[in-house]
Amino acid sequence: MKVYLDNSATTRCSERAKAILIRALTEDYGNPSALHGMGKSAEDYIRDAREKIAATLKVEEKELMFTSGGTESNNMAIIGAALGNPRLGRHIITTEIEHPSVREPFEALKELGYEITYLGVDGEGRISLEELSSAVREDTALVSIMMVNNEIGAVEPVGEAAKRIREKNPHTLFHVDAIQAYGKFRIYPKKLGIDLLSVSGHKIRAPKGTGFLYIGDKIKIKPLLYGGGQQKGLRSGTENVPGIAALGEAAAESYERLDETVSRLYGLRERLIGQIAQIPGVTVNCAAQSAGAGHSGDQPAAPTAAPARTADRPVSDAGPVRSAGQPMARPGDLPGTGERAQQPAGPTVAPHIVSVTAEGVRSEVLLHALEDAGVYVSAGSACSSHKPAPSRTLLGIGLTKEQAGSTIRISMGAETTEEEVDYAAAKLAELVPALRRFTRR
Amino acid sequence: MKVYLDNSATTRCSERAKAILIRALTEDYGNPSALHGMGKSAEDYIRDAREKIAATLKVEEKELMFTSGGTESNNMAIIGAALGNPRLGRHIITTEIEHPSVREPFEALKELGYEITYLGVDGEGRISLEELSSAVREDTALVSIMMVNNEIGAVEPVGEAAKRIREKNPHTLFHVDAIQAYGKFRIYPKKLGIDLLSVSGHKIRAPKGTGFLYIGDKIKIKPLLYGGGQQKGLRSGTENVPGIAALGEAAAESYERLDETVSRLYGLRERLIGQIAQIPGVTVNCAAQSAGAGHSGDQPAAPTAAPARTADRPVSDAGPVRSAGQPMARPGDLPGTGERAQQPAGPTVAPHIVSVTAEGVRSEVLLHALEDAGVYVSAGSACSSHKPAPSRTLLGIGLTKEQAGSTIRISMGAETTEEEVDYAAAKLAELVPALRRFTRR
Repeated sequence: MKVYLDNSATTRCSERAKAILIRALTEDYGNPSALHGMGKSAEDYIRDAREKIAATLKVEEKELMFTSGGTESNNMAIIGAALGNPRLGRHIITTEIEHPSVREPFEALKELGYEITYLGVDGEGRISLEELSSAVREDTALVSIMMVNNEIGAVEPVGEAAKRIREKNPHTLFHVDAIQAYGKFRIYPKKLGIDLLSVSGHKIRAPKGTGFLYIGDKIKIKPLLYGGGQQKGLRSGTENVPGIAALGEAAAESYERLDETVSRLYGLRERLIGQIAQIPGVTVNCAAQSAGAGHSGDQPAAPTAAPARTADRPVSDAGPVRSAGQPMARPGDLPGTGERAQQPAGPTVAPHIVSVTAEGVRSEVLLHALEDAGVYVSAGSACSSHKPAPSRTLLGIGLTKEQAGSTIRISMGAETTEEEVDYAAAKLAELVPALRRFTRR
Repeated sequence: MKVYLDNSATTRCSERAKAILIRALTEDYGNPSALHGMGKSAEDYIRDAREKIAATLKVEEKELMFTSGGTESNNMAIIGAALGNPRLGRHIITTEIEHPSVREPFEALKELGYEITYLGVDGEGRISLEELSSAVREDTALVSIMMVNNEIGAVEPVGEAAKRIREKNPHTLFHVDAIQAYGKFRIYPKKLGIDLLSVSGHKIRAPKGTGFLYIGDKIKIKPLLYGGGQQKGLRSGTENVPGIAALGEAAAESYERLDETVSRLYGLRERLIGQIAQIPGVTVNCAAQSAGAGHSGDQPAAPTAAPARTADRPVSDAGPVRSAGQPMARPGDLPGTGERAQQPAGPTVAPHIVSVTAEGVRSEVLLHALEDAGVYVSAGSACSSHKPAPSRTLLGIGLTKEQAGSTIRISMGAETTEEEVDYAAAKLAELVPALRRFTRR
């Protein structure tokens, strides 16, 4: 049995995305800048993709820039916003647990004279809104906070964060790395107060090498790439029409049955955590949102509540989504969109990521043992897992270096089944004690 | 009949490239940073692509960086080399006829305080080596010269240019935009003295959104994108494995029967030019290399000579390649690699591009009339053809604004046939007088 549980690293391209990709590669393969009809058809593919994506975010089509992926989106947002708005100041804020594609552009700006404030996180991987409020200054040009952490699945209260930032400085730009969040939550940048939002294609079953950046209408950024002036001069280069078309299709696909998918994933997550909790010496990080035990299992899960229904988007089979004493929302709703404005509503952890620490077993050893059993997971974040340094995110939530080195990430996707989750949990239960015995010898 | 003659704008993805792309999208879809076997297979695809491309250029695999396309390659080379080597000086040199993805990064550097020298070209679109020599100074950090012009097909003497640059300043870096040249000529950067060389995938039947930059072993550049540290930290972001694999395959495919393809294309070019020359008031720009008439038809074509053969790379059916009084080379050989070092050897025009001026007919009108007949060509350069300004390249070779506005580009590809070329020429012969009559009324 082959069980792919590394969907936060990358996903298998969906059949629908593949079909449109191939059509644009071999039939409607014109250059969108061409003046003839084949150029026009290529432009139509791009327009369709824009429409599909804009509808998922409730933004205007012209506010979307297609990029070569999440890293380019993050770089374009951060470096582009800072350099494009020199008058806003030279102070920038982000968190301790960002992906390197946010952290490194920040460090690059530091070399140019910018001052960085890094926000810490609590044991659940969440920032403090108070700390954020105190950090924002008159010369704060940009704040960047990820929506879902790629290693532990923590959901940051970005809507609340936007309010706090605006209260302190209405000119400060707010960027959100939504690479692990898009396709799992309904994200409305305008309602949430987000100026820039990054998305990667290959995390949502579009091809690698695709992504987009939402840039609010009035936000000025400096381009990273100069040339033929495509995409309003903000991102030159012949548009990757097949990739863009496939991205639009995958985006539409992700949001078509969002609540159903997300409920199903939360259900799988609970199921998995419930089984993992039975394994001695194994803990689930940031488990609060679900029923299973975790490092901070002191936050009791509320009883399952039926999700709200809306006329236009019926929720079917919402499953056992639980929220810890917070107003109930639909499975795909985000924190900060609930009713109690001061207390983030909705989930505090993403539906698809489970971070597991197996004390006494090196994560690489466990990863390879699971692989031998056909189960593919990640040690830390796969996006940079060739780096030997311990994860800042895992240290950030209070794990020791040793615990961080014994942590794997299980990440589910649209294709993950109960059978696969059960199989993975059974293999974990079988392998962890065996490996631990082996390690101790 | 549908005749696609806009291959310099973009090409149809090859079947071989498509096959490997799909395999990497749906079967071997791992993230190359993943520690498990699926990550390893993804890495293998990248390594294979590197090997295939390195073999075509005779460079080391580690000297290749994969990018999102030609524009990123050019930006990375130019901005990266200038900012990565501040001690070399703040003077940079390029030509008047570069693609915007070279020209605009130069202009961006100008804003940072760099001084630009633009080299002019003659009626055949070629730079003067003497002008280049005089332009290179002690503080010249970078020279960028395109190998094949995208609008007129002129081949620049880049090997000779490299020598002249080195003579004046051994520290100056030399970048070559080979986007229209790769896959048409044998290009050996080390032999030619090229430090940085840009290539785009979708011009050689790989998917859009792919490309690479050759960066000589000892050349330091500053990255454009920061993040997970992929590609030795020079180009962060999850590698576009399917695209890279397809690019490697398309590159290998292009070079497998290079001399045969190139001879065939030169043959088609002559055939086309011969027919176009019969149309009154229609001229071919930069026709010197071929038998047809041109604006500068005073350079007589030498009689066809049999191409040289080498033991390891037999040339079959080399066709009617002509060189104007220069040492004969194989069809895919480049200027500057011939025996007479002071006089560029090899062709002075690329095999696939034919620039045609039809006096008295607006290029857009002709383009759409040809399209109605099923023939797809470009007005000027498709990469920026939505821009109304007259082409700098066409003005650069001495055309009037009116002539420039009456010029189309016909660009052939690996799939172009004699029948298609004859059809296109016949349609041109039929349409041009009709449109001209119409215009005059």
